[in-house]
Amino acid sequence: MTDAPARGAASGGTHANGAASGGATPLWGGRFSAAPSGDLARFGASLEVDKRLWPFDIAGSKAHAQMLAAKGIISDADAEAIVSGLDAVGEEIASGAFTFDPTVDEDIHMAIERRLTELIGPAGGRLHTARSRNDQVALDARLFAKHAAGELAGEVRALMETLLSRAEAERETVLPGYTHLQPAQPVLLAHHLLAYFWMFSRDLTRLEAAAAAADASPLGAAALAGTTYPIDREMTASILGLSRVIENSLDAVSDRDFALDLIYAATVCMVHLSRLCEELVLWSSAEFGFVLMDDAHSTGSSIMPQKKNPDFAELVRGKTGRAVGDLVGLLTTLKGIPLAYDKDLQEDKEPLFDAVDTAANALSAVRGMVATMEIRTSRMAEAAGEGLMAATDLADYLVGKGLPFRDAHRVVGGLVAACVGAGKTLQELTLAELREASPLFDADALEWVKIENVVARRTSSGGTAPSAVEAQIAQARRRLAD
Amino acid sequence: MTDAPARGAASGGTHANGAASGGATPLWGGRFSAAPSGDLARFGASLEVDKRLWPFDIAGSKAHAQMLAAKGIISDADAEAIVSGLDAVGEEIASGAFTFDPTVDEDIHMAIERRLTELIGPAGGRLHTARSRNDQVALDARLFAKHAAGELAGEVRALMETLLSRAEAERETVLPGYTHLQPAQPVLLAHHLLAYFWMFSRDLTRLEAAAAAADASPLGAAALAGTTYPIDREMTASILGLSRVIENSLDAVSDRDFALDLIYAATVCMVHLSRLCEELVLWSSAEFGFVLMDDAHSTGSSIMPQKKNPDFAELVRGKTGRAVGDLVGLLTTLKGIPLAYDKDLQEDKEPLFDAVDTAANALSAVRGMVATMEIRTSRMAEAAGEGLMAATDLADYLVGKGLPFRDAHRVVGGLVAACVGAGKTLQELTLAELREASPLFDADALEWVKIENVVARRTSSGGTAPSAVEAQIAQARRRLAD
Amino acid sequence: MTDAPARGAASGGTHANGAASGGATPLWGGRFSAAPSGDLARFGASLEVDKRLWPFDIAGSKAHAQMLAAKGIISDADAEAIVSGLDAVGEEIASGAFTFDPTVDEDIHMAIERRLTELIGPAGGRLHTARSRNDQVALDARLFAKHAAGELAGEVRALMETLLSRAEAERETVLPGYTHLQPAQPVLLAHHLLAYFWMFSRDLTRLEAAAAAADASPLGAAALAGTTYPIDREMTASILGLSRVIENSLDAVSDRDFALDLIYAATVCMVHLSRLCEELVLWSSAEFGFVLMDDAHSTGSSIMPQKKNPDFAELVRGKTGRAVGDLVGLLTTLKGIPLAYDKDLQEDKEPLFDAVDTAANALSAVRGMVATMEIRTSRMAEAAGEGLMAATDLADYLVGKGLPFRDAHRVVGGLVAACVGAGKTLQELTLAELREASPLFDADALEWVKIENVVARRTSSGGTAPSAVEAQIAQARRRLAD
Amino acid sequence: MTDAPARGAASGGTHANGAASGGATPLWGGRFSAAPSGDLARFGASLEVDKRLWPFDIAGSKAHAQMLAAKGIISDADAEAIVSGLDAVGEEIASGAFTFDPTVDEDIHMAIERRLTELIGPAGGRLHTARSRNDQVALDARLFAKHAAGELAGEVRALMETLLSRAEAERETVLPGYTHLQPAQPVLLAHHLLAYFWMFSRDLTRLEAAAAAADASPLGAAALAGTTYPIDREMTASILGLSRVIENSLDAVSDRDFALDLIYAATVCMVHLSRLCEELVLWSSAEFGFVLMDDAHSTGSSIMPQKKNPDFAELVRGKTGRAVGDLVGLLTTLKGIPLAYDKDLQEDKEPLFDAVDTAANALSAVRGMVATMEIRTSRMAEAAGEGLMAATDLADYLVGKGLPFRDAHRVVGGLVAACVGAGKTLQELTLAELREASPLFDADALEWVKIENVVARRTSSGGTAPSAVEAQIAQARRRLAD
Repeated sequence: MTDAPARGAASGGTHANGAASGGATPLWGGRFSAAPSGDLARFGASLEVDKRLWPFDIAGSKAHAQMLAAKGIISDADAEAIVSGLDAVGEEIASGAFTFDPTVDEDIHMAIERRLTELIGPAGGRLHTARSRNDQVALDARLFAKHAAGELAGEVRALMETLLSRAEAERETVLPGYTHLQPAQPVLLAHHLLAYFWMFSRDLTRLEAAAAAADASPLGAAALAGTTYPIDREMTASILGLSRVIENSLDAVSDRDFALDLIYAATVCMVHLSRLCEELVLWSSAEFGFVLMDDAHSTGSSIMPQKKNPDFAELVRGKTGRAVGDLVGLLTTLKGIPLAYDKDLQEDKEPLFDAVDTAANALSAVRGMVATMEIRTSRMAEAAGEGLMAATDLADYLVGKGLPFRDAHRVVGGLVAACVGAGKTLQELTLAELREASPLFDADALEWVKIENVVARRTSSGGTAPSAVEAQIAQARRRLAD
Repeated sequence: MTDAPARGAASGGTHANGAASGGATPLWGGRFSAAPSGDLARFGASLEVDKRLWPFDIAGSKAHAQMLAAKGIISDADAEAIVSGLDAVGEEIASGAFTFDPTVDEDIHMAIERRLTELIGPAGGRLHTARSRNDQVALDARLFAKHAAGELAGEVRALMETLLSRAEAERETVLPGYTHLQPAQPVLLAHHLLAYFWMFSRDLTRLEAAAAAADASPLGAAALAGTTYPIDREMTASILGLSRVIENSLDAVSDRDFALDLIYAATVCMVHLSRLCEELVLWSSAEFGFVLMDDAHSTGSSIMPQKKNPDFAELVRGKTGRAVGDLVGLLTTLKGIPLAYDKDLQEDKEPLFDAVDTAANALSAVRGMVATMEIRTSRMAEAAGEGLMAATDLADYLVGKGLPFRDAHRVVGGLVAACVGAGKTLQELTLAELREASPLFDADALEWVKIENVVARRTSSGGTAPSAVEAQIAQARRRLAD
Repeated sequence: MTDAPARGAASGGTHANGAASGGATPLWGGRFSAAPSGDLARFGASLEVDKRLWPFDIAGSKAHAQMLAAKGIISDADAEAIVSGLDAVGEEIASGAFTFDPTVDEDIHMAIERRLTELIGPAGGRLHTARSRNDQVALDARLFAKHAAGELAGEVRALMETLLSRAEAERETVLPGYTHLQPAQPVLLAHHLLAYFWMFSRDLTRLEAAAAAADASPLGAAALAGTTYPIDREMTASILGLSRVIENSLDAVSDRDFALDLIYAATVCMVHLSRLCEELVLWSSAEFGFVLMDDAHSTGSSIMPQKKNPDFAELVRGKTGRAVGDLVGLLTTLKGIPLAYDKDLQEDKEPLFDAVDTAANALSAVRGMVATMEIRTSRMAEAAGEGLMAATDLADYLVGKGLPFRDAHRVVGGLVAACVGAGKTLQELTLAELREASPLFDADALEWVKIENVVARRTSSGGTAPSAVEAQIAQARRRLAD
Repeated sequence: MTDAPARGAASGGTHANGAASGGATPLWGGRFSAAPSGDLARFGASLEVDKRLWPFDIAGSKAHAQMLAAKGIISDADAEAIVSGLDAVGEEIASGAFTFDPTVDEDIHMAIERRLTELIGPAGGRLHTARSRNDQVALDARLFAKHAAGELAGEVRALMETLLSRAEAERETVLPGYTHLQPAQPVLLAHHLLAYFWMFSRDLTRLEAAAAAADASPLGAAALAGTTYPIDREMTASILGLSRVIENSLDAVSDRDFALDLIYAATVCMVHLSRLCEELVLWSSAEFGFVLMDDAHSTGSSIMPQKKNPDFAELVRGKTGRAVGDLVGLLTTLKGIPLAYDKDLQEDKEPLFDAVDTAANALSAVRGMVATMEIRTSRMAEAAGEGLMAATDLADYLVGKGLPFRDAHRVVGGLVAACVGAGKTLQELTLAELREASPLFDADALEWVKIENVVARRTSSGGTAPSAVEAQIAQARRRLAD
């Protein structure tokens, strides 16, 4: 093992499972009489998809080269050439100067490697000592996933902040709370918005778990069995900011749980957004009229001037399907495939990228909608009154006066029927009308039945009373400050 | 209604639900104080996805213009200008000369319309008389789906032809038939390949159903309620080769069953391909060794010269997941959305395109693999012998001689155990050894137990006997000739 | 082959792949030293699930016995004993007198076979000549699927009839037609209900395709390779009312497309129901108020007397998820499994049964809701007026008078804004107010703008004008009469 | 608020959204003229599904009663009657003495409540003070989920222990390591089994996250808005061993993330099991022959004595589909439903129960298979030799002697081809044969090429060398000891 550099790209090893390129001779093609045809090569290629992994591929390769030099496996001069060569390649890609050659660059890893060797010569080949495409690909995907989980978490936090800010400003706005889309009990809008705050805070937890799942280095697993070189896996991991190394080389190249976990987190987040967007669509309807979407977050019609369509909310709701599809797709791909690396695993990236992009864009769009929508508090208040939602509390009033619950329920049922018949709210009943129904009603019943008092009475922890909501806002602020 | 052309793009109507473009003022933007920002506009835009619909959009618009002129709704001169203008636009797109302007071309329909108006002036605007974006989009997607179903059917037929040809050439090759991946009874390779032939023939049926589902014109539904112009929907349908018009305008703009049906057909086809590819992977393994994939359909390893990987078979198997994901995605998107048009429906195209492309590429790749793989008939025959699969027939022999089945089973069980112990096949037993187990064995038992005779005995219709397979091949030829 | 009956349950064969029962010795257990433990046996057993297949299992066995006798493979006396024995078993199961023995009856096929042999003795064993569990199970599932597809089609037809009947009664009721849940153009309720009629008529088509997919006999495939007996597969198929036999024995035991097709048809039907139910929930809301669900199709609250919850509509919408899950489940199960029979295939029945039951119950529940809901036509009409949906037609009016469309649009835009400001409908504008906006308005503009006239003007085929809807109703009647 | 007990089951409240029972009058039926019919009631009922929640329902109710008494909301006497009544009901259910009445017991909560009131009279009614069906149902499901996550974690740990034990016993067994199901490099069986150990250890992490997601009390949210009673939510949570209360009452009744998280964890675990089972099926095949499944974990064939089917492995692989279906089903159900409680949410329980049961049974079945399978080490070793997997190391040998890698690769390529031609392994080459290919080969090359040395050379952390595997086993022991 004294002559490692001279042994070049040998055991444990390079391009262990590279697929073919169309036309040009692939690296492993020596004993093959025919390379895959253009169509097939395109079918097998992944460059268009995995191109975006370039920053992670370059970071991973730099760390690997540094470790190889530190362990004496390649020379310091080679390592320096590799690192500066990779930086140059990265700059070319970032600036758009890089030219991809579809006849040989079947994936981003090959493209960077090819260019590196063009730039620095044979030292480029020594980068691949003690590494295989299998562990390299797994590393890049993990670095991406960890990064993307962080980015998504940032978007989720921004939406939570927006929800919380609007909630803080709507401490007194009342709207109907619904069950079965029927008015049930009046609630503060702040309370309603905070329900979403906590929903998204669980997405944050899932994203953290997904980041932790990705946060481990597979490098050193080589093709599947580890390498014969005296590498230091902890060192590479540490340079890359990864907190641990994967314990088993077969698992390192075949595990895609980290991709599943991130897709799952993004998918549940999309389901949450779909619920919020359903409400934004409902609330924007002529019939509800609770909010007016900002012009910048709506679209109109060139021939129907009365229209203002909550397109973006519908689009987010619709895109939930694709996130579910991404999750199912990868689960189905992984079902029933044996150890260690199978080409099936190449299909991990598109659903991962798509789920991340979909959620990131949707979070940003929804944040904009929530931040800018005009809240029509008077229409909300009106609906809260019309909903006869004080009926329960009116019965409670009578129970408090000693009437058995069943009798109270019957009395209030009569009042409700009368209101429905007369097109009145319960708040519009006079004391005389109340007393006609039951002599137990006193003047304080008129106060008792007011919507704001109905709201204020639900003081239990987590309830909708202003005092409880105040405490909840403080809790939410603490959550965001974490 | 005498002055229709003058009424221009009015009722029933143009760009009824156009979404916003970033930066530039959208057509409907008059009463809006702010257009969606660039990010949002990109989120809502679909140009990158629906660009490929251009030939269908142009065909649909030409047919519409011709009908409008025929019904006197626009002038013949306008219709001619529109038709030749659309042809010019089509040539620009086909040749790559067309420049898309992402700031205003939010989808392919807008891009074509913009360019048409640049080319032919105001007459371009009259194209949209009695049409809305909603029915236009539905038409384009239907034309695509009908076309794509036909293309996929062609790919399926080509694969069926390949399977049948190889089956015809393997009328005498015997391999183990498996249940539970355990050798069960010997079968002809022709029979095994034909099992897939019939599987794919059902895909053909589903693709025909999907084509029929798409084969109806929504044009004339306008935004959702029909149009006030005296259009002739049957005429437009007929020009486009569509066999009928959709009966209800609301349904016309909200129905996406045709997309589901085609994605479903493509997905089941992928599941079928995944089963065949699983077998190709198994058969290519060192342990089975039944086939050698052609070099052009395999990949190798630069450091492991012994490797020949059935990558493409694995990739097809893996891509089955994404097809399932496409199907689930659209089903989930459609769940619970009200009539008539919702923006959620824009999410129909990506899963549709992806499922079609995935299946088309996979069918072509698998056809290549099947056409070129080297069949190792001797290894198959060897495995057929080793599998002790004649045991059942040996028991039958004794039953034929009058021995009760249970006794026959016991006798043969003993012979099987002896073979396992001695590492022999049943065919290698001598008459003496047979007679030691039971005096009922005569010399003809040695013939009886031969694998080819075991195969030949299963003459029931659809069975694996050469005679039955011959009949099946004839049936398959007839199926393809349909 | 002259002595077939004497050869009993031999080749081609019986219980070819029976799974183990807990405790009791399974039929194939001779060379096994241990039977699966109780837990494992329960894991492998399917009796609780497949019990409902009993009528199909008995019908299939009777047909098989009749064919065997007709071909001289078993004696007429045996066949008669078997047929009357099976009838007796069927009566026991139907009446509840049958006692299942979980220690040996691991599936319904074994349970019936066991009981048959108890009742008629050794002749029972001869039923299994030239048959295997593999083709028997496939047959039963196909008979079930064909039957269930017919039952579901009946439910779909009944719902279509209900929708059509209500549409016929609502030829004059106007409500807003929505896009993006924003009022777009007024439509007849009949037109809206018919949109669903046509949606469900496509489900009928899919169910017919699913029935046709199931309508083929696998019997005679035996374990996987056909049988050595001189059976007549066409005869069995014909007795069972199946229109053809499956062409390939391997395909016959491994194909589950018929189950996928039926689950798919049921799933799309559930997606359609989810859209209708979403509207029923919306329409039942206080804000829309378009319908009042019948008491028998709603639930209330013991403490909130004002509530009437459209629970059943929500439940149907929610159950759409499980149908999608059933479809995905079976697709994923089938992905990547080799020929011919694998135990994975046992997992076909639960998703099939669940999808069928879910759709059948949901169809029936929705039919009840639609049949009995109270339609609040005045509230619908009011919403149709409030929606300012005549704006487009008002612009058309001016265009008809010679005003360029852009100018007309601007004029009407001003009127719309004035209406919004004053809380008026367009119909409430006076001629003076109209003329103030444009002198081109004449007295007929007041008629022109009436909602019923806006509706009546959309006369294109499939449009919402009464005349077009009348034609559509006639078409729908013909569809149902098919 | 001093007179709370007298106010009985009022605000905040009882059976807030109870569904109807067939025939009998439901509690909320006062103003309803018709109850749902039997069919509909069955459609809406969930008793058959949620029956198993009884221990959690009783525990939750006991805790609630104790808290109500502690806060003076009900009397101590009532609380004692309720607690002992609930214990009595629990005993009845546990013993099978409980009689469910399908005409009134539409769910388990109603059944227990009915029986409680029968047993202890009016005090039973007071249990529901300050509680609604909505928060009660959410609590029961959470208690179940937390418990089930723990049970599943126990099953996962048991399987990990089994894998680790077998790995410890197979420290010297070598088999081929595969990529693309092609022999790639030899690995220790211990290493291979440990790859699964780590896979399942990630399931443990996910199950812990799912348990944490469930570990919060919704009680006190009442119907949706909190309650007017001076309850102590922390106290109830603490009695039930839940670590926190949900911060928002709307979220408390509408959140089903805890169910998703547990289904997701179970589904990924099933995907892992499907991979292991795929290998067990492969390894049990005649062609691989690596393991012999224990009789108790296989099934046979009554007519094919040579068969031993790995049914249970296939069944686990097949059941992976249903878990994926459960996950998709609930995601789809949740998509796009508004706050707070919708009846759709009732559909959470079946997928949750099914996923948990499926994973629990599969884990137990697989543990049994792994624990009892006979490992055929000689067949594994033979395959490891036949795979020519030492080729890479042989090239490395020459590189170590100073030969450039490309030349070394060419030399070894020739030797590989010669071996293939002669049906030899690389280990069977003589020194003379080696030297003929290259004079750089010395006698130590014969040692170098031995499979055990090839394995031993991969000493990198996580690699397959015995030393690395030893360290890995120690790590695994520590993981289990956590």
